[in-house]
Formats: sequence, structure tokens, C-alpha cells
Amino acid sequence: MIYKLAKNRKTVRKFKSDVPNIDDILYTIKVAKEAPSGMNSQPWHFLIIDDPQIKRKIKIIAEKAEKTFFEKAKGKLKEFLITNNISWEKEFLNSAPYLLLVFSDIRFPFSKESTWISIGYLLLALEEKNLSTVTYTPPNPLEISKLVNAPKYYKLEVILPIGYSNESKNKQKRKNIDEIVSFNNF
Amino acid sequence: MIYKLAKNRKTVRKFKSDVPNIDDILYTIKVAKEAPSGMNSQPWHFLIIDDPQIKRKIKIIAEKAEKTFFEKAKGKLKEFLITNNISWEKEFLNSAPYLLLVFSDIRFPFSKESTWISIGYLLLALEEKNLSTVTYTPPNPLEISKLVNAPKYYKLEVILPIGYSNESKNKQKRKNIDEIVSFNNF
Repeated sequence: MIYKLAKNRKTVRKFKSDVPNIDDILYTIKVAKEAPSGMNSQPWHFLIIDDPQIKRKIKIIAEKAEKTFFEKAKGKLKEFLITNNISWEKEFLNSAPYLLLVFSDIRFPFSKESTWISIGYLLLALEEKNLSTVTYTPPNPLEISKLVNAPKYYKLEVILPIGYSNESKNKQKRKNIDEIVSFNNF
Repeated sequence: MIYKLAKNRKTVRKFKSDVPNIDDILYTIKVAKEAPSGMNSQPWHFLIIDDPQIKRKIKIIAEKAEKTFFEKAKGKLKEFLITNNISWEKEFLNSAPYLLLVFSDIRFPFSKESTWISIGYLLLALEEKNLSTVTYTPPNPLEISKLVNAPKYYKLEVILPIGYSNESKNKQKRKNIDEIVSFNNF
């Protein structure tokens, strides 16, 4: 039942060192690529990274921008970061056995929308395989795109660090359905 | 298995008149609201419309803009529209027993990304309930938002006409996995 997967699935930032089978990663992409897209353009690309050197470089590039971002954060955002114990350090970029970089092809209409539908599919497929992730959006996607030689028209939408959960935090609460649903009038 | 749902799920623009149980619609929203979101802001709202009068008004508003859009279409887009027999007429806005309008709350960061993840969840949940839809993005979302009295900071992301499939077209082909996956370097 999809609901069980969706309900159990939680954001994970801490990973065990066990390396998942690459076939499981490919399975989740096989699921993701079945998503619908504007004009069936399938405007997505999936880059699997397991090379520790490249992971380390991505971590350095992302953390540099994160540090600036954190120093400038204020208000509700700063509060959220502190409450949730989120720092500029992104250890998961190193500790997750895989980084899955998902790109959208901006030459096509609705490339962002379509790609994020496919990411939704992929998150549920990961859960099915008992794999965890966090939808990490680096502040400086362009620098990371350059590092991995992505063509200019591919936009880095998200980095998904993937592995087995070593997370102690519970899933954050969701609103009740009556808070987010209306009938016939907003 | 998620793969089976993802693989079988196809875009549907023609619907039977049978009215699905509202509990099934609510089930899919229960799935969707488990999606992750930036700062766990849950920046989404789901408006269920089954009032024929409102459906008709939405159809009139959308088709007015579609007609203009089609008259201006050219190149690959025009080709796609003709090949796929897609016209400016959006009969599904009338024939689908339900329209589910999904809004993102633009006051939150990553509201679009988060909402489209939740739409991905929802599409698979619909498939699980044997329900079908098309991710219809009207050219003039603002006019429709006004009609249903959505607050200004809610952006209409998609209209999902929902019902039982009466579609004869097959699912459009997807690329092979090796066309969309790279390892360690794009």
C-alpha cells in the first residue's frame, strides 16, 4: 500500500556505512522515469556518484556556500535551523554511500515540475527498498553542475544522498487533512 | 510494488461518468501530505471540485486561454499537439467527476518543488485506487485561482481531473535507463 510507504518514509541525514546494491539504486530510477512529463519530454537526468573523491569535492563546494547562507540566515529560517540542529556542515555528502544528483533539462516546458514528480516517485521507491535520503538543495547548484560536467541546459535540482538510515530523529509531524483540503471553494 | 504502479500509470484525458468514492480521493491526499517539504512547511493545498457549475466555469476560463495558446503554438510544440490529437478544448474539465486543484504556498522556500513531490505521491496513489488523471497546467492559473477564491499567496500548480479511465491511447514510451543515467561524471 502506497500510504504505508509514504507514511513511514522520513528524511534521513545520517547513514550507515553499508553500501546498498547498485541494482536497488537503478530500480528507483526505473520507477522515476515512468513519471509523466510535459510533452513526454522526460526532461531529467540522474547522475550516480560513489567516487569518494568526487563526493568530497561536492561537499567542499556545497559547504562553502552553506556557511555563507547560515551566516546570513535570520527569522523563522534561523529558528528552524537551530531547532532542527541543522548546520552548514553536510556530513551526509560524505557519509552516504551514494549521491544521486537529479537534473532537469530546462529546454523543455515544465521541466522543473516534471522532474520533481519523478523525484516524488523515486522517494517512494527508495522507501520500498529500505533506503533513505534527504532532498538536499545546495545553495550553489551551478558550481556543482560544473564539477560533474553537466551540459549548460541541465539544471541541478537536488542532491539525494542515499544509504541505510542511521537517523535517530522521528519523522516530522504532518498537518491534519482538514487543514489542507477544501471543497468547491478555497 | 511501486514499479508496477509507476509503469502502469498513464495519462488519461477521457473519463467514464462513474463517480469515484470521495474516500478514495481523500486517500490520495493523505498519501500526498506525507511528502517532505522545505522546512517541513507543507506548502500545499488541495481543492476538490465536484460542483458541475464550477467545473463548467473553470472549463470556460481555461479554454479561452488555451485557444489563444494553440493559435500561437509553433514548431515542436505544434507538432506534438497535432500528433497527440490535443486540442484547445479541455473536455476532461467537464467529464471528470472530480477536479483536484493543487496549490503551492509561495510564502515558503521550495514551495514549488515540495508541492510537485506531493503530486508525484498523489499520482501513484490514484493508480493504486484505479483512478486516472492528467497533470493539466492551465495557461491562466491566476484567473482560475480568483474564481475559487484562493488567497493571493497560493499558486495554482495543477488541475487534476480525476475519474475512471475511458482512454484508448497507450502510455507514451519512456527512454531506456542508459539514456538518462550517468556514473560519477555527467
